[in-house]
Amino acid sequence: MIKISYQDLHRTLLKVLLRFGFEKKKAELCARLFTDASRDGVYSHGVNRFPRFIETIRNGVVDIHAEPQLLSAHGAFEQWDGRRGPGSLNAHASMERAISLSRDHGIGCVALRHTNHWMRGGSYGWQAADAGVIGICWTNTMPNLPPWGASEPRLGNNPLVIAVPRNEGHIVLDMAMSQFSYGTLESYRKRGEHLPVIGGFDLDGNLTRDPAAIEASRRPLPIGYWKGSGLALMLDMLAAALSGGQATHQVKRDVLQETNLSQTFISFDLRLIDKEVATAELVNHIIEFAQAANSLRSESVRYPGQRTLEIRRENLAQGIPIEPGVWEQVQGMSDEL
Amino acid sequence: MIKISYQDLHRTLLKVLLRFGFEKKKAELCARLFTDASRDGVYSHGVNRFPRFIETIRNGVVDIHAEPQLLSAHGAFEQWDGRRGPGSLNAHASMERAISLSRDHGIGCVALRHTNHWMRGGSYGWQAADAGVIGICWTNTMPNLPPWGASEPRLGNNPLVIAVPRNEGHIVLDMAMSQFSYGTLESYRKRGEHLPVIGGFDLDGNLTRDPAAIEASRRPLPIGYWKGSGLALMLDMLAAALSGGQATHQVKRDVLQETNLSQTFISFDLRLIDKEVATAELVNHIIEFAQAANSLRSESVRYPGQRTLEIRRENLAQGIPIEPGVWEQVQGMSDEL
Repeated sequence: MIKISYQDLHRTLLKVLLRFGFEKKKAELCARLFTDASRDGVYSHGVNRFPRFIETIRNGVVDIHAEPQLLSAHGAFEQWDGRRGPGSLNAHASMERAISLSRDHGIGCVALRHTNHWMRGGSYGWQAADAGVIGICWTNTMPNLPPWGASEPRLGNNPLVIAVPRNEGHIVLDMAMSQFSYGTLESYRKRGEHLPVIGGFDLDGNLTRDPAAIEASRRPLPIGYWKGSGLALMLDMLAAALSGGQATHQVKRDVLQETNLSQTFISFDLRLIDKEVATAELVNHIIEFAQAANSLRSESVRYPGQRTLEIRRENLAQGIPIEPGVWEQVQGMSDEL
Repeated sequence: MIKISYQDLHRTLLKVLLRFGFEKKKAELCARLFTDASRDGVYSHGVNRFPRFIETIRNGVVDIHAEPQLLSAHGAFEQWDGRRGPGSLNAHASMERAISLSRDHGIGCVALRHTNHWMRGGSYGWQAADAGVIGICWTNTMPNLPPWGASEPRLGNNPLVIAVPRNEGHIVLDMAMSQFSYGTLESYRKRGEHLPVIGGFDLDGNLTRDPAAIEASRRPLPIGYWKGSGLALMLDMLAAALSGGQATHQVKRDVLQETNLSQTFISFDLRLIDKEVATAELVNHIIEFAQAANSLRSESVRYPGQRTLEIRRENLAQGIPIEPGVWEQVQGMSDEL
């Protein structure tokens, strides 16, 4: 691993995006979202994912000039068409619009169709919390998770993000419906470690903690078995129905061809009803109560987003760790086309 | 088990509620919600729970005359105070109000504070789907689930309900954040069976499939370990923050004293944007695709709510199975006070 400063990483990604024809403002934001993901320790969806993102521009899946388009407006609820623009920019614009709607209505919801992979889902949770609102969003994905009781992927792992703002550090949950992502399985395998808990089936249909066995079977486990399987199904149904867009079964099972995703963005602005102070205290009390639990480890119970802030501080101070090969590849991209 | 007809069960519960002083209309609905739960196979929250509900009227936790009160209205989003009325009636009224708001705004949200246990959460999902809307709701509970990494209950199991309407049978997910409820643990123990998957820790801190060991340790497992633990925390935070009500840490850890719960009800009316036909097809295609997966069992993959409809048909045709002792107890209640 080498360590690259936030500024250098952002500047490098920006340069590539500009070379690929992005408008300046869009390139800035797109580069920032990738850099933020790496800065926050979500390495699988930061700069490591950047080459694949560029590949989907090259192969025509992502239209870098597309702007999301309003399809229908009903007060607090709007439907938008992402027109296969960059998924991160579409998602960011949709959460921004949901936030704006919630400023007027207390609640705001944007249902987005025909978009692309949003990269790190947590981005849009942090975005909402930074704006002082409660944010909820989810996306569907290509089929990559077998329903409980089945042996082939017919569900998406459909990440769900929930964010609550707090001065002392936002609470941000960012979770896919599979117990471990393929990226995590790969990390454990490369380190030669077993998973901390069972994460899927091996080729013989037995539950296992061996990451390589799950990569081979392509049968990761939904969280909570039948429960996560059911929740993944519902999130797909909601995302597609609310947006009038496509569902997991209509999405190509190929990371380079995965497109026309459907997403939902919800914002609640509690300041409209003058609850800011009360909410801040409440949220702190909830966290304190959970963290005061007898812990089974040397450290106290963590809340969602806590580790993110720790890693963010570390990476901003010491540089963001990047695999030398990836850094070289990304730097090279700014010279070629 | 004895089998009691829907009509007989409803009539008996109604009689008890009227004796306890419920107004006729409220008694009818309250009795129906209990009867529906048993009819649909949710025995733990049907007539089996009725004596405990009556106990919370007797001990003053539930005020049978309280009516929910509007606290603040912001277009599609409203806050209501349940004033410690019957939880099922408050929840039903709140979902009804959310549905009504969604008829005007596309989306409707009611945040409810100071309410009581809503009994079967799925009721309000079926209610929404029967009204032709998409319904989402959740509740917080008393602390009954240890956060991941801790040994004592500091989270609620905070059930989440998501419902999508469909002519061929609604899709309704009703899931708590613990892998198994205490009711389910008890059922397995009484049948002398082990759980199908690990469900919690024993007193020595080892993961186990033995229901009695989990009952003894009071350490059920959150779905997906750290993921369900995080989701339970967020649902509590949202329910309490949106309603301005109380969070799990403020709720007494005693089933007979559990009160001042906070709940959220969301409805989406897609008919407002003329998507009914498209949505119906979409939902059917999603279900068909999931059910066409290679199954590991003799039957195909089930969708959330499917088994409910099967049990409902069976129980309506053959009578609702009830333990003789419970039936006797409930019948006796209509004579005593």
